[in-house]
Amino acid sequence: MVGYKFMGKAHSNAYRALPMFFPDAPAGPELKVLCGRDAAAVEQARVQFGWEEAETDWRRLVERDDLDLIDINAPSDAHKEIALAAAAAGKHLFCEKPLALSLPDAREMLEAARQAGIKHMVGFNYRFSPAVQLVKKLIDEGRLGQIYHFRAWFLQDWILDPDFPLVWRLQKDIAGSGSHGDLGAHLIDMARYLVGEFSEVIGMSETFVKDRPIAAEMTGLSAKGDKNAPRGPVTVDDATLFLARFEGGALGSFEATRFAAGHRSTNSFEINGSKGSVIFDFERMNELQVYFTDDADDVQGFRRVLVTDAPHAYINAWWPAGHTIGFEHTFTHEMLELFTAIHEDRQPSPNFVDGVKCQEVLEAVDRSIAERRWVGLEEMQEA
Amino acid sequence: MVGYKFMGKAHSNAYRALPMFFPDAPAGPELKVLCGRDAAAVEQARVQFGWEEAETDWRRLVERDDLDLIDINAPSDAHKEIALAAAAAGKHLFCEKPLALSLPDAREMLEAARQAGIKHMVGFNYRFSPAVQLVKKLIDEGRLGQIYHFRAWFLQDWILDPDFPLVWRLQKDIAGSGSHGDLGAHLIDMARYLVGEFSEVIGMSETFVKDRPIAAEMTGLSAKGDKNAPRGPVTVDDATLFLARFEGGALGSFEATRFAAGHRSTNSFEINGSKGSVIFDFERMNELQVYFTDDADDVQGFRRVLVTDAPHAYINAWWPAGHTIGFEHTFTHEMLELFTAIHEDRQPSPNFVDGVKCQEVLEAVDRSIAERRWVGLEEMQEA
Amino acid sequence: MVGYKFMGKAHSNAYRALPMFFPDAPAGPELKVLCGRDAAAVEQARVQFGWEEAETDWRRLVERDDLDLIDINAPSDAHKEIALAAAAAGKHLFCEKPLALSLPDAREMLEAARQAGIKHMVGFNYRFSPAVQLVKKLIDEGRLGQIYHFRAWFLQDWILDPDFPLVWRLQKDIAGSGSHGDLGAHLIDMARYLVGEFSEVIGMSETFVKDRPIAAEMTGLSAKGDKNAPRGPVTVDDATLFLARFEGGALGSFEATRFAAGHRSTNSFEINGSKGSVIFDFERMNELQVYFTDDADDVQGFRRVLVTDAPHAYINAWWPAGHTIGFEHTFTHEMLELFTAIHEDRQPSPNFVDGVKCQEVLEAVDRSIAERRWVGLEEMQEA
Amino acid sequence: MVGYKFMGKAHSNAYRALPMFFPDAPAGPELKVLCGRDAAAVEQARVQFGWEEAETDWRRLVERDDLDLIDINAPSDAHKEIALAAAAAGKHLFCEKPLALSLPDAREMLEAARQAGIKHMVGFNYRFSPAVQLVKKLIDEGRLGQIYHFRAWFLQDWILDPDFPLVWRLQKDIAGSGSHGDLGAHLIDMARYLVGEFSEVIGMSETFVKDRPIAAEMTGLSAKGDKNAPRGPVTVDDATLFLARFEGGALGSFEATRFAAGHRSTNSFEINGSKGSVIFDFERMNELQVYFTDDADDVQGFRRVLVTDAPHAYINAWWPAGHTIGFEHTFTHEMLELFTAIHEDRQPSPNFVDGVKCQEVLEAVDRSIAERRWVGLEEMQEA
Repeated sequence: MVGYKFMGKAHSNAYRALPMFFPDAPAGPELKVLCGRDAAAVEQARVQFGWEEAETDWRRLVERDDLDLIDINAPSDAHKEIALAAAAAGKHLFCEKPLALSLPDAREMLEAARQAGIKHMVGFNYRFSPAVQLVKKLIDEGRLGQIYHFRAWFLQDWILDPDFPLVWRLQKDIAGSGSHGDLGAHLIDMARYLVGEFSEVIGMSETFVKDRPIAAEMTGLSAKGDKNAPRGPVTVDDATLFLARFEGGALGSFEATRFAAGHRSTNSFEINGSKGSVIFDFERMNELQVYFTDDADDVQGFRRVLVTDAPHAYINAWWPAGHTIGFEHTFTHEMLELFTAIHEDRQPSPNFVDGVKCQEVLEAVDRSIAERRWVGLEEMQEA
Repeated sequence: MVGYKFMGKAHSNAYRALPMFFPDAPAGPELKVLCGRDAAAVEQARVQFGWEEAETDWRRLVERDDLDLIDINAPSDAHKEIALAAAAAGKHLFCEKPLALSLPDAREMLEAARQAGIKHMVGFNYRFSPAVQLVKKLIDEGRLGQIYHFRAWFLQDWILDPDFPLVWRLQKDIAGSGSHGDLGAHLIDMARYLVGEFSEVIGMSETFVKDRPIAAEMTGLSAKGDKNAPRGPVTVDDATLFLARFEGGALGSFEATRFAAGHRSTNSFEINGSKGSVIFDFERMNELQVYFTDDADDVQGFRRVLVTDAPHAYINAWWPAGHTIGFEHTFTHEMLELFTAIHEDRQPSPNFVDGVKCQEVLEAVDRSIAERRWVGLEEMQEA
Repeated sequence: MVGYKFMGKAHSNAYRALPMFFPDAPAGPELKVLCGRDAAAVEQARVQFGWEEAETDWRRLVERDDLDLIDINAPSDAHKEIALAAAAAGKHLFCEKPLALSLPDAREMLEAARQAGIKHMVGFNYRFSPAVQLVKKLIDEGRLGQIYHFRAWFLQDWILDPDFPLVWRLQKDIAGSGSHGDLGAHLIDMARYLVGEFSEVIGMSETFVKDRPIAAEMTGLSAKGDKNAPRGPVTVDDATLFLARFEGGALGSFEATRFAAGHRSTNSFEINGSKGSVIFDFERMNELQVYFTDDADDVQGFRRVLVTDAPHAYINAWWPAGHTIGFEHTFTHEMLELFTAIHEDRQPSPNFVDGVKCQEVLEAVDRSIAERRWVGLEEMQEA
Repeated sequence: MVGYKFMGKAHSNAYRALPMFFPDAPAGPELKVLCGRDAAAVEQARVQFGWEEAETDWRRLVERDDLDLIDINAPSDAHKEIALAAAAAGKHLFCEKPLALSLPDAREMLEAARQAGIKHMVGFNYRFSPAVQLVKKLIDEGRLGQIYHFRAWFLQDWILDPDFPLVWRLQKDIAGSGSHGDLGAHLIDMARYLVGEFSEVIGMSETFVKDRPIAAEMTGLSAKGDKNAPRGPVTVDDATLFLARFEGGALGSFEATRFAAGHRSTNSFEINGSKGSVIFDFERMNELQVYFTDDADDVQGFRRVLVTDAPHAYINAWWPAGHTIGFEHTFTHEMLELFTAIHEDRQPSPNFVDGVKCQEVLEAVDRSIAERRWVGLEEMQEA
């Protein structure tokens, strides 16, 4: 595994949880090598997360014969190089989102994975919430009918303070994009998973705070900065919104922002169909609100379904009814799909195809913003 | 109508709304005489509320031939005398709760009403919420099954400040009791209406703030007092809780308090039955939460039913689906029952019988507190 | 008053409530003449709503000397003609939204009102919710800081059934537009009131159900139709979404739809500023969710403020703390502004200027949809 | 560790998570021996949960020199014997609640632990929710003022079906009690932790379904039974409610039931103090509702605090702000206290003293039910 910060910790935990909670999974991981550039830090993480060895150069991992799978959760700008080399070496790949910094890069990675005949997966973990699985089931079984509306928003407020420092996630050359690629990507994948492919989009974006104190240490989501430090330009979007049409006829509305005071991490969507609706908010991930038009006319209303019962996805592996799970569990479910797919000799879902298609939508939105017009997804295929 | 403060205003509004919103009601009021002790104040109220005449002595109302109905919403200690006189004169009666300050008084009023052959009603207005009507319907139709639990609480915080003045509602000789009779009475009536008769009770009560500044003016719910004024003893309960068994086998839990910070007026109950449950909070009176055990097993959950659709009680009289009503509307519905019952020559519901039975439960609780033991309701019959 | 259906009933109720609940209002109405085309129906409404006279030709109202104010709540296509004639006759005007079917018409009405020197008001009643008044106050006092985001949605589901008949609200020549003008107009006015003027917009719209059974009787929101009747084309939008930029720099997202299953009438918005946020949902109109960034760091969170306390707008006129009001009360508050403004010899707010500006945004969105591009509001001024 | 079912799994997970998420903890576990009566099942659990050895006789554990700590989560009727033997052997003890089947047994266990000079802890895991820690902090810092009310309810519905089989939790000789000891015990401990000691109680209880089909296999919370099997008597309570007074003057209301349709596991409480209130529901364990009386008067309301920020207990060990945790995390926090206390040579909290005091309240309630009177806690000391 390359990377040992937020995502490295989440993945390590998932790998460790898999055999304990899903003992019937057909395959599972051995935690062999953890890789990062800072030798001391990666060694500390190795001990903490329970890996056998530590390594500072990812190339060594690629060269080893005893590794079957490489998990890439290093900063986004490093994804491509590692993935190409690992694919060439025939390693299966798990890559955190965003797959790459650009659509051509993402396609190159997908092509390399196809050429190598490896299994590949991309880390859209929110799909693996029991509530989202229930939505998928309701839609697939036709219980929501024809889908008319998908509206989604991912609201955060961690950079609301104008003196919050200029961390790497605010720099385009490292992060690729801001709220759009970081948060919007999750919404796009969710929409594709549940409603289907996009046909056209138009967006707008804004950087509310144009420059920020340069941080001594460029870390992740949180950073202690000196507010009197020299300031550098923020080169990514603070907020991006877009409208969309789906191939199936539904209308979409999307909003990703880091400037929504009071929202630590509100990742939410609503779907309205001809036979019912669902509302989901990841802050209350153990719940799904569900409405059906065919309920008796005096008791129609959104049901607050606690998705912690036996009929709900993954739940039998965890705790009795009514006992909730949290954010980290989505990764365990994700890894269950990864190892099950490898065992069954099929591609996991979501895989690099989904990574590429998400990137197409992200860049179609970027283009629509730059050119102030609707952009059809077929334009991205041509590109 | 005798009384022109909070309840006098609510009743006046209801009388005026009745012909406009329920034009098919078989009968309705003419607003003849408004009565109160303060001539200037009652005249002002007369103009404001739209009554034809003002009067300062309720005895004059009783003597008049052109009045068919007397509405009593004067302070609680005046109810009995007015009611007895009015009944003797053959006037129909609408009396605000509590019917009287004591059970013997309440029984005397009921007996007088029966002797006079008049129609009598008591003001438990919360029954007339569309959501409560829906609960009643669900129970009557067996859709909740056998009732196991009724839990209810009426939480307020208007006297939380120890320097809030000693208004009449805090004095036993005028108010009869504190939170118990004021708030608990509503819960008791709701329980009787929905679950049936009580069989036994045990309670506890407390007066957290033992004395308060004597108020220059003894008004109702709000008062501007001088916190440095001499203090007098609070002679009613600040909070009363009790447990109960119902004749039908259900268990009940009740709490009324004026010391629940953050609760302006949370009048709420939950009922659990063998086939389903309901949760109601009057602060969100346009909603009812409903659960059914026979919902499909992957989408079980409490439904948030907005009781503003055509199938819900009273709603066709008001606004289109999704447009809410408020506190005052319960009184209009209450008056609809009053005039409909008079027209149909039957007793309205709830009537003085319900006032007496509510008083029996209130006093059974009082006795259980005084004697620190369970008190069966049959003891109250014997009394 | 011209019109006696849904809005005619709401206005009548407000006129009647004004002197009772706001006895200190400097002026108030006399309910002289109610006008509608169907003589029997209007006479029935006259009696029910408490008007002195009934009339079937609105021109007679304009001609009378004893009327100072004309209230126009007839179907939208009749607004202009009545308003022009009434203005010419020097009558003050209250006109329901939308002001007119088109921007030129709306401007003509504004110009006529200005020429006549009359007072004019337009019926954006949602401004007059106590919760909205609190938002306005928080913004004006700088307690939310600089506004970054305004997102709003008005979701209904009353025509979700494809066999719901073709009522007048679904016909462009009578209604002007569909969800956009009916629901979106309220959101636009709310945005203008709270966040300020729009600078540019881009939208999309859809008619999901293209034809419907022709209704025997063309009524309003509800209709019993024959699903086997011949079908006619729906000529208005079922849903319209748009993105916007405001002059002050905020980003806006808007959605109006009649195809959101489970939403009877969810009229909701959220505002995010540099110092705080608010969330409002008219289905829970007695509540406002408020967040402040400067709360102590261990207890930050959205507060559920019950806007029924003395410090909240209009509340002292109604009931004690914690006792809720409903939809109809917004109209009473609206009429309070109307009569207060007339008395103070100033224009009410909102007035025809707001009606025109709302129409500018509506039509800018329409143009952006037709031409598939961003439309600046300055284009509408030029038009 | 003795026991490997629901609690055994939860504890194993916590032991494994401790070093990963709390690497700075001064001490941590080695997972040596897992013990259970069924050799095959315990061996399977050993592999799944990651223990070194499996054992079928708990006496062997006590005899071993290489074990410092025994974790007892076997069925309740086995707690005492194991604990006494382990204490005699000088092993530290972690024992799931209830500590024992009776107060004398619990006291004997405490006395044995004291005599042995070992560290002892009892598993009231809900204390270790970040939200509960915040409540504790608010109370300790005086931010809620004087506590007036504590009301709590633990509502489940897993045996609502009268044909649900007669599992061991429904048999008094194994389980000790029903809803009271299973669910009520958690509420009692929470009350003691937050509000202080009880002074007197009075309760009532009921077994709604008197007999059930005898289950072929006597398992835990869920069981597949044959509804046509012979039926045996349910010997525990389905629901127990009680009122209480606390030494500090607060009033308490408690309800535990397994017959609350729609509530899978609603473990909830509210506290009202002179300066504020809190509301907690474990189904939304990442949230705490908090109200303060000194908020500005126009924005008073319960705050929905997402307890996932840096200032909240334990959170820095997990994920960034806004990313939730679940039920199992409370055990990890619990074990952190256990090992920290052992390292610091102090008793963990809660320990066997808390187990005994909880049992005193449980049995005081039982006695109050049997004798139909208030029972003071001082009676239990005398016993």
